Amino acid sequence: MRIVVLAGGIGGARFLRGLKAAAPDADITVIGNTGDDIHLFGLKVCPDLDTVMYTLGGGINEDQGWGRTDETFRVKEELAAYGVGPEWFGLGDRDFATHIVRTQMLGAGYPLSAVTEALCDRWQPGVRLLPMSDDRVETHVAVEDESGERKAVHFQEYWVRLRASVPALAVVPVGAEQAKPAPGVLEALAEADVILFPPSNPVVSVGTILAVPGIREAVAEAAAPVVGLSPIVGDAPVRGMADKVLEAVGVESTAAAVARHYGAGLLDGWLVDDVDAGAVADVEAAGIRCRAVPLMMTDVDATAAMAREALTLAEEVRA
Amino acid sequence: MRIVVLAGGIGGARFLRGLKAAAPDADITVIGNTGDDIHLFGLKVCPDLDTVMYTLGGGINEDQGWGRTDETFRVKEELAAYGVGPEWFGLGDRDFATHIVRTQMLGAGYPLSAVTEALCDRWQPGVRLLPMSDDRVETHVAVEDESGERKAVHFQEYWVRLRASVPALAVVPVGAEQAKPAPGVLEALAEADVILFPPSNPVVSVGTILAVPGIREAVAEAAAPVVGLSPIVGDAPVRGMADKVLEAVGVESTAAAVARHYGAGLLDGWLVDDVDAGAVADVEAAGIRCRAVPLMMTDVDATAAMAREALTLAEEVRA
Repeated sequence: MRIVVLAGGIGGARFLRGLKAAAPDADITVIGNTGDDIHLFGLKVCPDLDTVMYTLGGGINEDQGWGRTDETFRVKEELAAYGVGPEWFGLGDRDFATHIVRTQMLGAGYPLSAVTEALCDRWQPGVRLLPMSDDRVETHVAVEDESGERKAVHFQEYWVRLRASVPALAVVPVGAEQAKPAPGVLEALAEADVILFPPSNPVVSVGTILAVPGIREAVAEAAAPVVGLSPIVGDAPVRGMADKVLEAVGVESTAAAVARHYGAGLLDGWLVDDVDAGAVADVEAAGIRCRAVPLMMTDVDATAAMAREALTLAEEVRA
Repeated sequence: MRIVVLAGGIGGARFLRGLKAAAPDADITVIGNTGDDIHLFGLKVCPDLDTVMYTLGGGINEDQGWGRTDETFRVKEELAAYGVGPEWFGLGDRDFATHIVRTQMLGAGYPLSAVTEALCDRWQPGVRLLPMSDDRVETHVAVEDESGERKAVHFQEYWVRLRASVPALAVVPVGAEQAKPAPGVLEALAEADVILFPPSNPVVSVGTILAVPGIREAVAEAAAPVVGLSPIVGDAPVRGMADKVLEAVGVESTAAAVARHYGAGLLDGWLVDDVDAGAVADVEAAGIRCRAVPLMMTDVDATAAMAREALTLAEEVRA
């Protein structure tokens, strides 16, 4: 079975771990968000790709969900001693090595997809990890500064430095219009048996992937059923601050509203949490088959059960 | 008093520490060798400049004479886990930060001289540290490989990986002919009261600096006396493997031969160690005033005494 997953960072990575447990023989291709990539200290950092790679490869810091396990921060301390920031982005020493290798390979002319494949040679994530695009796409968030002036900040600055503490007025994937899907992305979608949207952020993770011209169309036109899992449980994001960016695109923070935001043009099936069972009829009225199941990724077993529910719903849709 | 010193790495840095102690009120400009600079992991590494900066700024690993004190190697271990080398060059985590800042600034368009000044803002070495050139010069060493084929290797590969264990057939500062002295270099030489050659490697340290067109001429034509200290004591280098590269340029490993190699056109005075007192007449016969004094940099006091002897000899020459 060929499964394609459109993944953001922590939520996507944890879902993938459950999916691998639920479908150990499946051929899984992950299309990773690169809109939150950032250049720090002259190095190319790809937080979402790395979170997937480290999580599936056994190198993740389990407690925080991103970055490397058993990490130290000596390089960062030294950079700060030079007065070189930003200090709000927590790059550890082991993590730095990944960005150094990536930057060196990009500088030598390799596209991000080839670099990602090379990094995965070490991590053996058990999935084929593709960046959504080899072209630079950078998610910017429009905010109001103290003086009421509207300005754009990099998504990482909004998310990590500001901790989404000010309203997001708009979310713009800068460069997406000119970006092309990375090699293999459209083929994987066309040949998929199932396409899954994990409980990742619908705006800045899955939404950014869909903003690359050709990908939304390929998902919509794919022969495979497309099933998503709600990142909103009981009117609040399971983790992160998805509600902040949903507001920017005029979408309510409810499981049903997110399903309608994707729409029946994309989604064939949608899973909501048991606590949102009341939303099932609402989602089905929008032309999307819906089931209420437990959606908390408390451990790998619980997550594998969610993945099995998603695959079951996909079979139902197909039948 | 304005003193200009042409410096390599460890020997130059340790001499400078003694010179600062001997002449605390002097205005010292250091013209640093950049011929042993190397790109590693996509980062620009300047071993000699950093050794001077760390030594005078209190950050050096005193035991080995290069690199940072209290160092760890987590980034390097991770790079090795990615299969990315070379492993023979010992870059520590704290040291990496320096190269990351330098590479980022160079990438932003700053010349190496401006970058070096910015790095020194932190280290406060108490001297003005100038790279010999902002242009890329890379010292290559011609060697014979196992099959008897002649090939060129980067100086660091010859020095660090091969530990100078094979004969150096030639030493070539690639790019030197097209290089220009960095801003301030020629002015410092023209305005100097004294010019010193510390006991640095005469071929790959001082020799490379002199290979930048304009610098040899500026030293030769400077109004200031030029005094050098022999890096060879008792027919062997005090440290390092200077004899290996002296052979490549056809110079004997003796204090007198090195003086003659620089020549009376450059040198006004030359200090040899007490054990080489027999060489004094030989050096003076070549038109270079010579004194035998203790030349072992065993500690800062001994090194300061050497620096005082050099300044005294400069005064004698001037008088």
